[in-house]
Amino acid sequence: MAAMGEFDLIRRYFQRPPGAGVEVGVGDDCAVLVPTPGARWLVSSDMLVEGRHFLSTVDPARLGHKALAVNLSDLAACGATPRGFTLALALPRVDEAWLAGFARGLLQLADASGCALIGGDTTQGPLNICITVFGEAPPGQALLRGGARPGDEIWVSGRLGDARLALEVFRGTTSLDGNGFEAVRAAMELPTPRLALGQALRGIATAAIDVSDGLLGDLGHILAASRVGARLDVDALPRSAVLAAQPAALQHTCVLTGGDDYELVFTAPAGARLPNVGVAMTRIGVIETEAGLRVFDASGAEVSHGLRSFDHFAS
Amino acid sequence: MAAMGEFDLIRRYFQRPPGAGVEVGVGDDCAVLVPTPGARWLVSSDMLVEGRHFLSTVDPARLGHKALAVNLSDLAACGATPRGFTLALALPRVDEAWLAGFARGLLQLADASGCALIGGDTTQGPLNICITVFGEAPPGQALLRGGARPGDEIWVSGRLGDARLALEVFRGTTSLDGNGFEAVRAAMELPTPRLALGQALRGIATAAIDVSDGLLGDLGHILAASRVGARLDVDALPRSAVLAAQPAALQHTCVLTGGDDYELVFTAPAGARLPNVGVAMTRIGVIETEAGLRVFDASGAEVSHGLRSFDHFAS
Repeated sequence: MAAMGEFDLIRRYFQRPPGAGVEVGVGDDCAVLVPTPGARWLVSSDMLVEGRHFLSTVDPARLGHKALAVNLSDLAACGATPRGFTLALALPRVDEAWLAGFARGLLQLADASGCALIGGDTTQGPLNICITVFGEAPPGQALLRGGARPGDEIWVSGRLGDARLALEVFRGTTSLDGNGFEAVRAAMELPTPRLALGQALRGIATAAIDVSDGLLGDLGHILAASRVGARLDVDALPRSAVLAAQPAALQHTCVLTGGDDYELVFTAPAGARLPNVGVAMTRIGVIETEAGLRVFDASGAEVSHGLRSFDHFAS
Repeated sequence: MAAMGEFDLIRRYFQRPPGAGVEVGVGDDCAVLVPTPGARWLVSSDMLVEGRHFLSTVDPARLGHKALAVNLSDLAACGATPRGFTLALALPRVDEAWLAGFARGLLQLADASGCALIGGDTTQGPLNICITVFGEAPPGQALLRGGARPGDEIWVSGRLGDARLALEVFRGTTSLDGNGFEAVRAAMELPTPRLALGQALRGIATAAIDVSDGLLGDLGHILAASRVGARLDVDALPRSAVLAAQPAALQHTCVLTGGDDYELVFTAPAGARLPNVGVAMTRIGVIETEAGLRVFDASGAEVSHGLRSFDHFAS
């Protein structure tokens, strides 16, 4: 296929009419947005690299979905309402079929989330996807990591560990039947950012984070920022039937340290009335004064763990 | 040197106390900013890739400066006041000397520009720097590409072509003495975003863009967005003494199609009172009704040109 110029490429796949509150979208030096009067602006940025955050064989539409989803998940963790995002894309070459699929998956989730593509950049280079998202929240209502208090209950949305189980199948350390594999692969490749839940938790959750690097590490960020400790019930951690059929050690690895879940883990005062937004929520532990994270199983035995999250330079 | 974890790395080099108007900076899922009441938000994103936007041998402090400068230049072109930026960084390995230099150059320009580092991401991968900048402008006062009118004069700040001349030296197609080379190399590696000029041009300039891909191509974006044409005087284009000493053909290439200048090219009604912000401004042409861009030299002879800007996929 003939090489397209950079500007044609942007126009063909990514230029869209500006949405509500977007005065200038893709196509000038800057996008121009109209903030909601009185709202705070929330910003987050994530960079995805081939071989580290996704496999080269991934379906481009799923990759487009996931690239935006992991960013929207940061807005969800802060209780923000999405407003827009920029996309910077380095591509080894112009592959129109790939671009069409990537744009389709990306823009479908953008539309479903009310998050407009407002600008960005494309260049030639090793495949790299950098998205920056913008959202809004009322003053003082953004969910942060530092508000957990002793006695607060720890909750998690959805299920944990399927994405890691899929990764173990790709790595060849375990195997699943076709249906099981497709289910956990979809969890890895098509995560759902918990935007409605995050917004509904404004004024209720005392601290929140999304599970991107693994529950232990991400909960550890809440504990460190809040200067508290916690007790966790590993057998209470919600998991799929596919994962629950695996050996106990693998289950523990997946639910405790597997990343890429994009569920919300949050703390709330005991007895707080939690919102119903159609997402399962499970109580998994309690915040304690004593520093550190203590993990127990249903029999009351302590489970040893290294409290190590996924680290992009150490693992 | 021992490998540092991702989070230690972020803390050591990039975590800073939040600045004015930043409620939450680096270190939570999102940064939280307080918009100026009534202002519009302007957003731009640029991705820099080794071997395409910079040489692997570049001084890391200069690279840090340039990575932010090219983004601030987009804010300048829109007349925005900088507020903050995110940095996403893919690094092949943790090189502390490189990181310290990069952070020094980056944060020095950030401080000088009142643009706070508010968040970002780091990961392992082929070297890639993605910065997203945020600024503000009063409603209706952002400088855009589409407002040029027949009869408007075309102006450019500073000087053009030195960055391209430096690139030609690196490519080995020409050579310079040591002082000349250092001067044009500094133009390439340490561009100055014209922030004060951009803000001062609010309400005066009818259209503006920064010269990142070459004057012909960038001015071409103004002409296309404004649905006008232009006449340009190539001999009026401002250039350094070093460039003015080169053969005429090389001068033309550098001033007309060389990129990486990061000067502002803007249009203003004839006789408009231009602001004095200590930056030289040169009148280089006039907007005409007839579509297309006509380039003449001082003798009145038409100079042929391809109206091709730097294209990241075609060149």
